[in-house]
Amino acid sequence: MSVSRIREVRGGSAGDGAGGVPGGAALVSERWARMAWSRIVEPETVSVRDWIAEHGAVESMQRLLAGSLVRDGRYDQRIAALDLDQARRALDRLQVRVVIPGDDEWPLGLDELKVPPLCIYARGLCELSITDGSVAIVGSRAATHYGLNVAADLGEGLAQRGVTVVSGAAFGIDAAAHRGALAGGGPTIAVLARGLDRAYPQAHEGLLREIADIGVVVSELPLGWAPYRARFIARNRLIAAMSVGTVVVEAGLRSGSLNTAKYARSLVRHVAAVPGPVTSVQSAGCHKLLRETEATLVTDAAEVLDVMGRLSLDAVGLARAPVTPESELDPVALGVWSAVPVRNPADLAELQRLTALDPTTLLSALGRLTMLGLVVRVGERWRKVPAARR
Amino acid sequence: MSVSRIREVRGGSAGDGAGGVPGGAALVSERWARMAWSRIVEPETVSVRDWIAEHGAVESMQRLLAGSLVRDGRYDQRIAALDLDQARRALDRLQVRVVIPGDDEWPLGLDELKVPPLCIYARGLCELSITDGSVAIVGSRAATHYGLNVAADLGEGLAQRGVTVVSGAAFGIDAAAHRGALAGGGPTIAVLARGLDRAYPQAHEGLLREIADIGVVVSELPLGWAPYRARFIARNRLIAAMSVGTVVVEAGLRSGSLNTAKYARSLVRHVAAVPGPVTSVQSAGCHKLLRETEATLVTDAAEVLDVMGRLSLDAVGLARAPVTPESELDPVALGVWSAVPVRNPADLAELQRLTALDPTTLLSALGRLTMLGLVVRVGERWRKVPAARR
Repeated sequence: MSVSRIREVRGGSAGDGAGGVPGGAALVSERWARMAWSRIVEPETVSVRDWIAEHGAVESMQRLLAGSLVRDGRYDQRIAALDLDQARRALDRLQVRVVIPGDDEWPLGLDELKVPPLCIYARGLCELSITDGSVAIVGSRAATHYGLNVAADLGEGLAQRGVTVVSGAAFGIDAAAHRGALAGGGPTIAVLARGLDRAYPQAHEGLLREIADIGVVVSELPLGWAPYRARFIARNRLIAAMSVGTVVVEAGLRSGSLNTAKYARSLVRHVAAVPGPVTSVQSAGCHKLLRETEATLVTDAAEVLDVMGRLSLDAVGLARAPVTPESELDPVALGVWSAVPVRNPADLAELQRLTALDPTTLLSALGRLTMLGLVVRVGERWRKVPAARR
Repeated sequence: MSVSRIREVRGGSAGDGAGGVPGGAALVSERWARMAWSRIVEPETVSVRDWIAEHGAVESMQRLLAGSLVRDGRYDQRIAALDLDQARRALDRLQVRVVIPGDDEWPLGLDELKVPPLCIYARGLCELSITDGSVAIVGSRAATHYGLNVAADLGEGLAQRGVTVVSGAAFGIDAAAHRGALAGGGPTIAVLARGLDRAYPQAHEGLLREIADIGVVVSELPLGWAPYRARFIARNRLIAAMSVGTVVVEAGLRSGSLNTAKYARSLVRHVAAVPGPVTSVQSAGCHKLLRETEATLVTDAAEVLDVMGRLSLDAVGLARAPVTPESELDPVALGVWSAVPVRNPADLAELQRLTALDPTTLLSALGRLTMLGLVVRVGERWRKVPAARR
């Protein structure tokens, strides 16, 4: 196998490539090593987290390849199949980038997981940092019309308020939430339980393409890896970690979305649930959450933000007192706020011209300003909230 | 006006009668004085509570009649119209009894009110003491089919578990709860916001007769007094005080049942609410309670008892450890428990024969035993829960 350099589609510098491996080539790149690790072990493998903590990703991978890290041969097959050059080419072809800790767009929330992902495979316009202040909407595949409508309304309402919606692109509630967010003109993040080479579920190929067009589709699994039960559960922890809170819209008593809510709770994120008729088994999981946990009942997007918005502000240490833009905003947000007109709302292109910011940074700043009540979104445009109304 | 003796329909002794008043006759009876007071002032009159606390009901009424208690003449008209003999005859004719503090059947919960009722006018088979461990079910007049079904199911489920249902006999949720309780074979209590001379609402005349047949219909208002807004609100406090907790089934944001819930909370009773579709305005009040207060979400009768049952046991100071009948029960309940068969359930008549108790005492004891998990109700019959399953 040949040693070659890689081009990061985005994010990583061109110079941190490494070898095709195995074959003795030096693993010079952290990104390379984490990609390699991600092709060797299943998500949430505690021992690998510990090895990387002790030796670093590069050296632990070198030790693995040299046969000095694991002696029982359990990874031999995957090591033999490891061809990072080929993997890299496939990633390039599919325009999938590899995001690792330390990258600007790495969502810091992931570091709070007991076993963070080794890397995130991402495809789409937006950087993962749009997860700042984002909200997860999850629920049953076998949703009712009622649940689908509520999920779509929540997705749309949150997007209109500048909040990114995170979900799992599954049938039912997930898809309705993504579609609602897209209808609200907001970016949305789909976290898949399989490699990004194929749509999952297959029927959502179009939806996932649409999400990548203005948001981002991600997975911690390498291309080609299929969804298994354990991988779904591992995926749920990413949804919980990439958002300030999780809203469960409909869930039977054994729904996987209750597992996402559990992860969110363990990460000290907020958990909210939408009630429904007590006669609906698809609401039984939500009612259980509301009865037996600290979950908050929510009925619309404003109530979600009432809970999650506050939490997000708390998390970044802002006071709850009325915000004065000059005192509370970082320079980027303050710049964006200054550019937003008071009277006639401006669209994204106009604000880009005025601020010279890239769309992701701009959208993220507009999202923060919206949540702070300083800016209001009007369809695809934004205007300032007059000081008197703040 | 003549001085005559009264016959208490039930409860009070024949000897504690008094005069027709006014006319200088001695007000020898506490019951007489409280009846008189109830015909003079509106419910929740703080000054009367204070006068009675200072002088007692009899002396304060004597002072009122002598003109030494209130000098501004504000009660003159009602004093002039006071004819307790006539009132007494009307009560006898309608088989309405007057219950006052100190009577065996006086619900002690009423004494926890800021302004307890002066007396309770009651008509029906059961004594008011069946409010021990009872649960209030309240909600909108303009209920949905969903709400009506849930209220009826809750009423029936609670009655089947030996719990008395208290409500206001109004259209909508109240009536559905009463009807459910009757269907479940349990006594139920209707608390009206008018005198017991007429059904209110008129359309519920049959329902109220049915309630009186196996439960009891009560009011703090004298015969002839019509329902006004303030009297409805005062009535709600009685519903809250006569139960260990209040369940709101459906409520718009301005529903009077939220006012009952507020009374319950202020009395440190439990408040629970049934969720519904977030798209239903008739559930908005319930969702508000669940979001903004300590109210517990409940979806069925078992969950109501999970909350209220525990509270009720706490209130009487029982340990939460497994109950052993011999150690925890009062002699009456222990007697009833001993009489209940293990295998073939016994009906009320049979248990009456075995225990020689009146139906009210027997039902109340069976209710307590049911809530303690010592006895189970099977239709209209009861049997012991085997020790192994407790």
